Amino acid sequence: MTTAERLNTIPLGEAMFTQRAIRRFKPDPIPDDVLDDIMQATIRAPNGGNNQQWHFILVKDAGMRGKLAELYHEAWWAKRADAGIMGPEDIPPGKSSMRSAMRLANEIGVAPVMVLVCATAKGAQAMGSVIPSAQNMLLAARAFGVGGTIATLHPVVEERVHQLFGIPEEAQVVYCMPLGYPRGEFGPVQRLPLAEVCGVDGWGGGYPG
Amino acid sequence: MTTAERLNTIPLGEAMFTQRAIRRFKPDPIPDDVLDDIMQATIRAPNGGNNQQWHFILVKDAGMRGKLAELYHEAWWAKRADAGIMGPEDIPPGKSSMRSAMRLANEIGVAPVMVLVCATAKGAQAMGSVIPSAQNMLLAARAFGVGGTIATLHPVVEERVHQLFGIPEEAQVVYCMPLGYPRGEFGPVQRLPLAEVCGVDGWGGGYPG
Repeated sequence: MTTAERLNTIPLGEAMFTQRAIRRFKPDPIPDDVLDDIMQATIRAPNGGNNQQWHFILVKDAGMRGKLAELYHEAWWAKRADAGIMGPEDIPPGKSSMRSAMRLANEIGVAPVMVLVCATAKGAQAMGSVIPSAQNMLLAARAFGVGGTIATLHPVVEERVHQLFGIPEEAQVVYCMPLGYPRGEFGPVQRLPLAEVCGVDGWGGGYPG
Repeated sequence: MTTAERLNTIPLGEAMFTQRAIRRFKPDPIPDDVLDDIMQATIRAPNGGNNQQWHFILVKDAGMRGKLAELYHEAWWAKRADAGIMGPEDIPPGKSSMRSAMRLANEIGVAPVMVLVCATAKGAQAMGSVIPSAQNMLLAARAFGVGGTIATLHPVVEERVHQLFGIPEEAQVVYCMPLGYPRGEFGPVQRLPLAEVCGVDGWGGGYPG
């Protein structure tokens, strides 16, 4: 069986409409063949000019995950500090996804794999060219009951992350994504109606016009 | 039937492994119900903190598409000029995808819909937060035989695009994507093997290590 055939066990609509950000993980390892299918699907994604300016680092070693988890925690709080949130008490009551993300920052090292989605060059163009692959990664993971979430680092840890993983100076880490089997229960995703985020022939919503 | 059920007519592996950049289009319109399913799937994508910092403009009106097509053409050549490519004669012989993209820049107005994928704020963080939705858009389109490609604009046209579509100053256009029914024949995508773009516990490929 090919990767495509194994991914055919889930239909597209189910994969997309049951996908949600997973931020609580069991420590159970992801089998290598499952991880391979996920990554084979990842590199099928569109990318700018088919230049494939992407590089993926699968962080599997427990020691390396521990070090990355520490940097992730520091980066997460550095991002909050940029927004004036200095500790848990500053998180607005309604922001349950921020509370969930805060917990992830404490326990991301539990996830059996962390993927550094990198671009081989700096800048927005290279970044924009590699991100669609992350969505293929998450949809393919969904087919195997594996979850994850898109997450980013912060410039405060950039140099140390580059050093730890031997990432070249000219490259950039675009996402730092945990992957693993979900722990606990998860509700469906909530989205604003299309009419609020989509316009026809102009900005301002009102879809379908 | 729901959008999810209609998307279930294609399995995930087939959608991902038959997806490819489509840059030649028939002028045939995309029915509104198909476009709606594509957009409903688009907003299921993960996004940073579920802040849904996205805004989509579906450019359907022929006059507006014509104006955007002109700006797209100018932007495409401005990007090439940044890379020292001043005309068709400067495109390296091996770069067939650039030749194909050049043709798209000439005829993007043929596509019945152009989608401006926008972020409601400037900067890399907002940009990175909305791009996964574009891959949902293309995969959902695939279920209906509709194709498209990720494409970007260039700062040289930014102000005019903002004016034309009433895009707020603080927002940004992340992708300018044509959508339509493919014209002609298309081969499969070509990708480097995973061993060249993926490493385990460090940069440098060599997957699976």
